[in-house]
This record gives sequence, structure tokens and C-alpha cells, in this order.
Amino acid sequence: MNDFTVKDINLYKVGQQKIDWVAKWMKVLNRLSDQYKNDNVFEGKRVTMCIHLEAKTAYLATVIQRLGAEVWITSSNSMSTKDDVCSALAKNGIHVHAVHAADKKHYQKYLKSVVACNPHVVVDDGGDICELLHQNPQYAKNLIGICEETTSGVQRLKEKERNGNLKYPALAINDAQSKYLFDNRYGTGQSTWTAITHLTNMTIAGQVVVVVGYGWVGRGVAIKAEGLGAEVIVTEINPWKAMEARMDGYQVMPIN
Amino acid sequence: MNDFTVKDINLYKVGQQKIDWVAKWMKVLNRLSDQYKNDNVFEGKRVTMCIHLEAKTAYLATVIQRLGAEVWITSSNSMSTKDDVCSALAKNGIHVHAVHAADKKHYQKYLKSVVACNPHVVVDDGGDICELLHQNPQYAKNLIGICEETTSGVQRLKEKERNGNLKYPALAINDAQSKYLFDNRYGTGQSTWTAITHLTNMTIAGQVVVVVGYGWVGRGVAIKAEGLGAEVIVTEINPWKAMEARMDGYQVMPIN
Amino acid sequence: MNDFTVKDINLYKVGQQKIDWVAKWMKVLNRLSDQYKNDNVFEGKRVTMCIHLEAKTAYLATVIQRLGAEVWITSSNSMSTKDDVCSALAKNGIHVHAVHAADKKHYQKYLKSVVACNPHVVVDDGGDICELLHQNPQYAKNLIGICEETTSGVQRLKEKERNGNLKYPALAINDAQSKYLFDNRYGTGQSTWTAITHLTNMTIAGQVVVVVGYGWVGRGVAIKAEGLGAEVIVTEINPWKAMEARMDGYQVMPIN
Amino acid sequence: MNDFTVKDINLYKVGQQKIDWVAKWMKVLNRLSDQYKNDNVFEGKRVTMCIHLEAKTAYLATVIQRLGAEVWITSSNSMSTKDDVCSALAKNGIHVHAVHAADKKHYQKYLKSVVACNPHVVVDDGGDICELLHQNPQYAKNLIGICEETTSGVQRLKEKERNGNLKYPALAINDAQSKYLFDNRYGTGQSTWTAITHLTNMTIAGQVVVVVGYGWVGRGVAIKAEGLGAEVIVTEINPWKAMEARMDGYQVMPIN
Repeated sequence: MNDFTVKDINLYKVGQQKIDWVAKWMKVLNRLSDQYKNDNVFEGKRVTMCIHLEAKTAYLATVIQRLGAEVWITSSNSMSTKDDVCSALAKNGIHVHAVHAADKKHYQKYLKSVVACNPHVVVDDGGDICELLHQNPQYAKNLIGICEETTSGVQRLKEKERNGNLKYPALAINDAQSKYLFDNRYGTGQSTWTAITHLTNMTIAGQVVVVVGYGWVGRGVAIKAEGLGAEVIVTEINPWKAMEARMDGYQVMPIN
Repeated sequence: MNDFTVKDINLYKVGQQKIDWVAKWMKVLNRLSDQYKNDNVFEGKRVTMCIHLEAKTAYLATVIQRLGAEVWITSSNSMSTKDDVCSALAKNGIHVHAVHAADKKHYQKYLKSVVACNPHVVVDDGGDICELLHQNPQYAKNLIGICEETTSGVQRLKEKERNGNLKYPALAINDAQSKYLFDNRYGTGQSTWTAITHLTNMTIAGQVVVVVGYGWVGRGVAIKAEGLGAEVIVTEINPWKAMEARMDGYQVMPIN
Repeated sequence: MNDFTVKDINLYKVGQQKIDWVAKWMKVLNRLSDQYKNDNVFEGKRVTMCIHLEAKTAYLATVIQRLGAEVWITSSNSMSTKDDVCSALAKNGIHVHAVHAADKKHYQKYLKSVVACNPHVVVDDGGDICELLHQNPQYAKNLIGICEETTSGVQRLKEKERNGNLKYPALAINDAQSKYLFDNRYGTGQSTWTAITHLTNMTIAGQVVVVVGYGWVGRGVAIKAEGLGAEVIVTEINPWKAMEARMDGYQVMPIN
Repeated sequence: MNDFTVKDINLYKVGQQKIDWVAKWMKVLNRLSDQYKNDNVFEGKRVTMCIHLEAKTAYLATVIQRLGAEVWITSSNSMSTKDDVCSALAKNGIHVHAVHAADKKHYQKYLKSVVACNPHVVVDDGGDICELLHQNPQYAKNLIGICEETTSGVQRLKEKERNGNLKYPALAINDAQSKYLFDNRYGTGQSTWTAITHLTNMTIAGQVVVVVGYGWVGRGVAIKAEGLGAEVIVTEINPWKAMEARMDGYQVMPIN
């Protein structure tokens, strides 16, 4: 039984539309799906996912299911959880344990629900599932390995490794070039401004924007702000990055 | 009695928050409000507004009310109508006749409701109120004049004028420099992309964007697309504008 | 006899190379040249030109000669005069009265030399030939008209017209859309920075650039400065233009 | 005796002006000069330089001389050699062996002239001095080490090292962050376009520019081309860099 119950028939229809839409654009995933579709690579495997639960990640879960796996999924952040998307996944037989704006207590409960299946593979975002499996090794008896897709999650893994406490193999997806070069820079650069403009109802052109830090995310946020017509000020403690920001045409100032 | 009924107490609270937020940033309107607040310039006047009904126009209605007028308002486009904002306006004593996603029949009904007050002043967006008052002159007996804020509405006014059929004084707000230089260019340029990115869940960087027409709106849309990292192609039949687009670094092609 | 004497054989060869190079890119002029080449439209006409004397204007003179005219040319600014280009023109039978870095006295002498031919048509840049012909009407007895290609020259013409003192027909080339939309904006925008970077041996990225005035030239200079990585500050007394500069992402400040 | 003879008094004056101008802007070098000026760090040392010989490198040579060294200098590329700058250096007591547009035979002769002093330190650009010292070890008896400032020179050094043939200590200046992050990207990006616009007399806005390779230099050239209003096409065989170019808004195509 899923924690997320499909009450509203329209909810899953709208969610399915959103998943179908993004599916058209996720060409690399589609190619992998086609390549392995006759091999049932995930036959008999249970995959547990803890991730921002919206259309694109939902389609990832869908493809994993299509390749033979049984999928348990929860959200790494209840505020980004889309109920319509969850509804569509549940309708399709994926075990969904998530609801928009769930509180911390429910978050913990959901985590336990998705590891109770004794997963073979874990897709983690932030390291909470990994932590849970270290505290409850009884759920890890089938575990082949963990993928971790955030900087902070990778840092937790590395600390465990340094202390000799890392019990399961883990893949630092975050350190892939396709993650930091593209997702962090162009993706976050744009989505930050979509969110701000949508929420604030403000024109960015002519505003002063201060970007704190000129790493991959900061660069992306700064260049999109410039592209929207803002005056951009960068603060950065690393002198090389500060100089790059300056040479890219931004004002560079100490943070206070 | 308003057509829009405040059923949900939270709805008007959220709407009021949105109006209060934009009020902080609408400095020119606030200055006018302060300047005339002791003069009751609109004392005893009825103002009818037909406009995109969201936080910023709601605040305009609020200021008109604050300066002494009684305000009747409907939406020029039911898809942009925000129910929470309408709710807040209704709560504040403005006569709101609008609901999100209303159909054409209701749109016509709302138009009639807001002119039935025999307005002194009309704020029109597209020319439908103006048309209605020409067909029903009984509602125009107090009418001092009409403000029209769109290109298409102004064209309808000018046609009426050419044919000798324009019965009421009208102000072409659309032709103000602050409208076409700023609203059309920077405003629409940004809001177009906020809407597209929000709806499509897509990264614009690396996409091919075709902009049809290189007028003020087209320029705004093109420069923001470039700022978001798109490859921009412009189609334009006016050769001077086509050449400007080319010199601005865009590809210029025939539309087919 | 020309004032400019071809002493150095290589000088005219280099000048001719420069003229041949720009000729390949001046497609509109080439099309006009082809269109009229069999008509000898300028047969028996004398054309006097006073203009920045470099490869592109030299090619204009060459085409005018090709279409049947006898051409007298001097420079409107001795600092932009290219001796190699002058040398090539003289070698081709055009009457050249100009030398790089000539002083004011020589400038006056050259002006007189090129009007002494009793021109049918004058191409003027700044209005000095026009002025000279008003003071010495004996040289204007064949004059059909004057083309003036600068803002300041057009202003002098208009003042003469207002005072009833304009004796000859004049064409305000400067007011053509192809002049102010393209030459003033994109042309001057780029050539300003080519000159500054070439002369100063400096990297523009990371510099603060102050642009005084946000007219067509100012816009061009500002956008190229931004494109080279500068932080751009605009000063502008016209409030609409100042607001446009702000919305284009520049800092706007009072000039002191 | 220098190979470069100061014949023209004005030549060295102009060269000195250029050196004095860049000296005002080379703040890091000036700070180092001030820091060590009382220590005579290079007292009694002979420094041999083979470098693009223009105002900025001339000032580097001047500072090395100021700190106590005797300096021998030649040019790594005779086409970039500025005779006026050479003249000023020679006038100041630096041993200059270079002339603009010297042929290959003279290049070889100059190389020998500047190593014949038995240098303590070598500043090399491309590796030719280094090579010469390996073939003529009699000139290297005082040699402390070599600085190499180009990618290609560093590659030659590394190959020598791999084969066990590197006889002298060498510093790969090219691999400093301040070299590839700034000089290669922003410096070459701008100077390429200054050279092209100056030479070709063309407006870049509206042109199609093809950039081959999206490394540091390619990025710099592409972003400045975009800033000048060109339509930019990038060719790149590395798929990550090709994707970055695409996400930066450029067209990406195979080279043929």
C-alpha cells in the first residue's frame, strides 16, 4: 500500500501529462531505455529512490521500472514534491511515499518505508537513505550500491570513507562533468530566476543583483541575471574567481 | 452584490499579501497617491476597469479607490485572472466581477455588470468596454473619457475616429513612451520567458528560439532569450528592422 | 596638378590593395555601380568631395569616377587621412588635395583647390565646402546640389535655411535610417573600441567605462564595451534614455 | 654592440612613450619592482629573454634591469617586434638583437647573440633558447634555470623530461592560473579582434564568425565576437566542450 493515495482522478492525469511532456525532451535517457529494453537489466531488482519528486525525476523512475525493476520512491524535499506527478507514478505501479509539504516526522516515516523493501540499488539525494542504511544494516542485505547526486551527500560519503565507516559501495554522480558543468551552471542559473520572477512578480532589468560566490552555480546565476538586464555585483573570497568575475564584467565587492 | 464571492478566507489573505508586496515596488503610483491623497480628486466618481486582473493592476484599482472613487472591475482575460487577488479587492469594497477561467458568456456578462454603474471614467484593455458603451450609450451619460492601454484597442479607437463614429474622448495610454519603451520591451521580454520556463520545465540554454517580428516586444523577447543562452533566429518583413536584428547578432531568416 | 604627389611607388600599391579589399565588401555600392555602369550617369560632371579620406570613402570616389564623373577630393580631417590611399587615388586620375596631419592653413588651401573646378555636385562632411560656396558663389555656378553626411553639417544647413540664407539644394544624408541606425550605432560603437584598444594596448575586460550620452552612438559604444567585458556606467540627462540605459543593465549616474 | 642600431632619434622617443604608458598599468610588476628595489636581487646576473618584443614585455625587461641584471633580449616573432620599443630599450642599455620583419636566418643569428653572454636566467617563449642551450651547453655553464611561457614550449620541455634529456631546471609559467585563465581567455580574446578589425576595416556586427576549438583561447575569442555582434559558430571535437559552447548560446557544427 502506498502512503500517497490517488483520490483525485484528474490529479494523476495532469501528472501523467507532465511526465509525458518531459519524456519527449530527455533524449539521453530515452536512448538508454531503448538500448536496454530487451535485456531486462533490472529484472528482479528493487530500486529505492529519494529525490526531488517532479516530472523529470518521475520519468527517470518510470524508465527504471520499464527496464524491469520494482521502484520505491520518496522525496528529498517535500516542498518540491508535486502531488500530481506522485499520483501518476502511483497509478503506474510505483510505490510512492511522498506528499507535498509533508512535515519532518512524515519525511522520516517515508524514508523508512522506501528502505523496508530491502533495495538492491539506492538513488540518494543528500545522503539520508545512505545514513539510514548504515544505522539499519538489516535493510542493506541485498544492497549492491548507492548513487549520490549532491555535493553535500558526496561530502558525507567521503567523511564516512575517511573514518573507515563507509559500508556500501557508492557512486558520486555529483562529480560527473554533466552534473556540475551543466546542471549546476545552466540549470540552476535559469531555474533560480524562473522561481524569483514567478514569486516576486518583479522585472529584473534595472535591479541590482548580488551573487554570493562565483563557483559553477554562482556563474550560472550571474550570467542569467545579466541576461535579464540586471546590474550584477559578485562577492567571492577566492582571489582567482574574484578576478574572473571582474574580467567577466561584473562589479566585485567584499560581502559587507 | 459581486459576482465573485469570498468563500475562502485564506484566499483574500494571500491576495492581499500579493498586493501589499507589489505596492512596495510601485513607486511612481505611490508618489501620485501621496500627492493627491488630501484632495479627494476622485470623490463621487465611478471608475470602471477592464484589465488583466493580478496584483499590480489590483493595486492600481486600490489607489484609485483610495483617492475617492468607487471602482467596478472585471478582467480583460480570464486566464490571467487571479482569484486570490480578486478576493482581496472584493473584501476591500471594490466591485469585482471576474473569476479565473471564466468562459465567453460570463465574460460578456461581467462587462455589462461593470458598465451598469454609469461610470465617469473607463480604464479599458483591448477596447471591449469602449465598444459596449457605443452600443449602449445609456451607460455613458456620465462618461468623461476612456483610457486605452493596448495597441489593438488604440487601433479600434482610431478606426472609429476615422469613420466619425468615436463618441467619447479617449486617451491612448499605449502610445506613452513608458508603455512601449519599457513595458512592451523589458516587461513582456521577461514575462514571456518566465511563463515559458515555468510551464515547460525546460532549460532554454542551447535551444533554438524563433522570434517572429522585431518590434519592441520582439526585441525584448529576443534579448532575454539570448540572455538565457538560446540560439536566436529572427523573422521580420521590415528590412530596416531585419538589418537591426542581424547587426544585433541574431540570425535572420524568412518565416518559412 | 595634385597637391598630393606620388613619390613612393609602394605607397600607392598598398593604398590600392586597401581599396580593393574594401571594394569586395561594399555590396550595395557595387550593385549601384553595376546598375548604372552603361548609362554614364555622371558623364561630364565634376564632383567635389570633402570626407574622411580612407579606403571606404576612396572606393566611393572610385565608383563616382567609374560612372563618368571627374572627381576632386580633399579630407575633412587630416588626422584620419591615409597617404597610401590618397596616393592610389591620385595614380588613378582623381584630383587629390590632402596629406596626413596637414595643418589648418593647408586644410583651407585644399578646400579652395577642390571647389575651384566649379563642381556640379558636392559631397560634404561637416559643412565647410557648403560654407565656402556661400562665400564664393562664383564657384557654384554649375552646382546642382550638396550632400551632407554629419549631424553638425545638417544643423548648419538648417540654420542657414531658417535664416533664409541657404542658396543651394542640399540632401541630409545623415538623417537616412542607414546612417543613424547602423553607422552611428554599430559602426562607431566598434571603431571607437578598435581605436582605443589599438592605441592604449589595454585589456578592456574589468575596466570601468563611462559613456556620456545614450543616443545612437552612446548605445553602440556601451554595448560593445559590455561585450568586451567592461563595467559600464552611463550618464544621460534625458530621463527616458537614462531609464533605457538602466533597464539595459548599465549603472546610470550624474556626470560629476 | 647591438644588432639593432638607434638611427632615428624619434624612434626611441616614441618607444619610450609606449613603455612609460604601459608601465602605469602594470601594477603587479610595479609592486614587485618596489618590493625588491633595495635588495639588488639580480645583481651581477645576466638574463636572456626571447619574447614578443613590444611595450609590455619591454617593461618587464626594464624592471629586470632595474633590479640589477644585465639583460640580453631578442624577439620570438619578428612580425610582432616593434622597432620603436627596441630602440628605447637599446638606448637604456639593454642588449637588443631584433628588428621588425627579420628573416629566419637573422632570427637564428639573434638567438645565438643573446645566449653568448652565458646567461644565469632565461625567459623563453616557444623553447628555442632552451633547445639552443641543449645543443650548445658551453653557454649554459652559469645557467640557474629557464622560464617557459607557452603551451608549445612546455610540451617540448615535457618531452625532453620524458626522454631523460632535460638538462636544466625549467619553470612552466604557461601553467600558472594567471596565464591560462586571464591572458589566454580575456587577453587573446580581445587582441584577436583588435587585430582583425584594425587590419580588415570591417564591421564585425552581422558577420558569421567560426571559432575552431572551445578551449580558453576559443572561449575568449567567441565571447568577444558575440559582444561585437557577430553570429558565432563553434567547432569542437571534445563533446563536453561542444556541449558547453551550445549551452552558452553558440551554434556548434562539425568543422567541414
